[in-house]
Amino acid sequence: MKFLDAEYALETDAGLELVEDVLDRFFTEAKLRAVSVHPAYLSLWEAIERNAAGGKRFRPRLLLLAYRRLGGSDPAGAARLGAVYELLHNAFLIHDDVIDRDVVRHGVPNLSGHYANKSRRAGASEESAQHAGMAAGLLAGDLVLAGAYRLHESVEADGGIRNQLRSILDHAVFSSIGGELLDVEFARAADMPSPEEVRTVARRKTAVYSFEAPLQAGAVLAGAASAAAALAAFGRDAGIAYQIADDVRGTFGDEADTGKTNSGDLREGKRTVLLSYAASRPQWQEISELMDGGEMTAEEVQKVRDLLTECGAREHAVQLVSEHAQAAVKQLGEEIPAELAESLESLMFSLTAGLRAP
Amino acid sequence: MKFLDAEYALETDAGLELVEDVLDRFFTEAKLRAVSVHPAYLSLWEAIERNAAGGKRFRPRLLLLAYRRLGGSDPAGAARLGAVYELLHNAFLIHDDVIDRDVVRHGVPNLSGHYANKSRRAGASEESAQHAGMAAGLLAGDLVLAGAYRLHESVEADGGIRNQLRSILDHAVFSSIGGELLDVEFARAADMPSPEEVRTVARRKTAVYSFEAPLQAGAVLAGAASAAAALAAFGRDAGIAYQIADDVRGTFGDEADTGKTNSGDLREGKRTVLLSYAASRPQWQEISELMDGGEMTAEEVQKVRDLLTECGAREHAVQLVSEHAQAAVKQLGEEIPAELAESLESLMFSLTAGLRAP
Repeated sequence: MKFLDAEYALETDAGLELVEDVLDRFFTEAKLRAVSVHPAYLSLWEAIERNAAGGKRFRPRLLLLAYRRLGGSDPAGAARLGAVYELLHNAFLIHDDVIDRDVVRHGVPNLSGHYANKSRRAGASEESAQHAGMAAGLLAGDLVLAGAYRLHESVEADGGIRNQLRSILDHAVFSSIGGELLDVEFARAADMPSPEEVRTVARRKTAVYSFEAPLQAGAVLAGAASAAAALAAFGRDAGIAYQIADDVRGTFGDEADTGKTNSGDLREGKRTVLLSYAASRPQWQEISELMDGGEMTAEEVQKVRDLLTECGAREHAVQLVSEHAQAAVKQLGEEIPAELAESLESLMFSLTAGLRAP
Repeated sequence: MKFLDAEYALETDAGLELVEDVLDRFFTEAKLRAVSVHPAYLSLWEAIERNAAGGKRFRPRLLLLAYRRLGGSDPAGAARLGAVYELLHNAFLIHDDVIDRDVVRHGVPNLSGHYANKSRRAGASEESAQHAGMAAGLLAGDLVLAGAYRLHESVEADGGIRNQLRSILDHAVFSSIGGELLDVEFARAADMPSPEEVRTVARRKTAVYSFEAPLQAGAVLAGAASAAAALAAFGRDAGIAYQIADDVRGTFGDEADTGKTNSGDLREGKRTVLLSYAASRPQWQEISELMDGGEMTAEEVQKVRDLLTECGAREHAVQLVSEHAQAAVKQLGEEIPAELAESLESLMFSLTAGLRAP
């Protein structure tokens, strides 16, 4: 099950090198300014740049796809707007990792992990090293969030379009931070959130800034207002489908294929649709006993996986992915050019592929 | 010694009610949007609004003063711009408190403290409650930082002026976060930073966003470009003078007058000009032994105070305040109207008043 490929299923490599150029210039300018403040500030910016390198650029890809297929003719401007959403994504990743106290991403130390390690090597206590990581992550996320706004203002657009683009960005930020707050609060609550609440988090925290906003912004910049509304509606369901699919993969995926651990979500007790559904099933008592008993062994994780399948949670989640993917595709009316609709449909298809138990 | 009065010494109450109106509308709109996401999101926004209430509005005051005295004629627009800097100030306060793990400000729980207390009351462990406070503070600061940018874009101004205002805001954010990073890194280092390094932090972290930027932005919005440059130069030294004066007060001030503890800076080992200077004096061994021996008693704090006076650190700091205040005033050339120059001079005078040992 490797539907990370979905993120590459968009045939939008075209224009992506322009996005990299914008990001390169953004970081070069920031590093030049930082070094005039202090070498330590340059180091922070270098860490931010490393942290942002090698990303899949999924949000710029979506934005460029919509822009080009809707007749946009200024790839450089679209690349700039795409880079804004890539920066926003990075700011959220950095701050989410601070909140989750995660120090590793894709198998290597993330920004906070890097600073904590540096501090440990300098002889700091464990508590002090963790604090160094937290502080660096907090400040780095602030810089990238502010940088996204700054870059956004450099996108050239007429008054009306500019105002729409601002509203889209603003809505994405407002929604994502609200979603992250709910995620944090639901995780602290004694009870499992309802499946509806889990989907609310998925929509607010992920769908808006990862799907709705980039698609909508690409359409607005291309001057295609009616397409923008349809794409936002598509993005809403597509983003929820994506998040649930990601959760299924985070629990049942083949690590060799996905490149991610498939026990992390369960060990952290992440509030997914899987657990939310299971909480209303007879198997829940056994599941929650396994999960509440401290660090689980590999066998216990596998037992939870089996119980999630047995109680129907996996099937339920896969069904939800399918339903939201279909609902997304239904939004693509005649205002969406056929080529764009096809790309988005195949993106939705790739989400659902391989999710079911073999 | 109560030079907090300095912050009121600006006779700029005029226009301040418009700033409050802008902030009121900002929070009302945010709360309306938040409640449509989830009641928990509304609670966060209510906490942010409470946290921002009752501030001295020092930055808007400075901005409005410059704007009005330089002939600006749109008080509503200036109030909007002033509110941007007030929001920025709040974002920095919230995130600085997260980094410093402070949970109290002005004697009441700050935003993180409020969330940690709420979590404790709900039965969370101490670690979990602190984490709840950190997470809420991080997200709240993000919201206010993003809100400052959003509000900034709603200030009406022509293209050239708008671009200048953006650069000023951008510089303020870039500089402040860099200054905070240095503050954190110097605090972790084994050696005391040099007096020069302490002043660099004061300038980057405080002077730019609290003095240079608001004065400059007020002048630019009023269309007074040459005055803007002079005011930025004034603000640089004024801000350093302010920070050093605040540090003297944080160690030697009368708590009844200042409303702040006068032992907190010493107990935290805050890297002030006082300690940086003392580190090169014979009394340093005794001072550092007192400070490194765990939580100090009231008598030990008083002993450190006496040693700082004895070794000349207090006199040195007061001298620096005076020098920077004078350097600031020297920047006020003929491009600055007499009434504005007088207000700024009296602000500088109020900084230095009462700082010396009685």
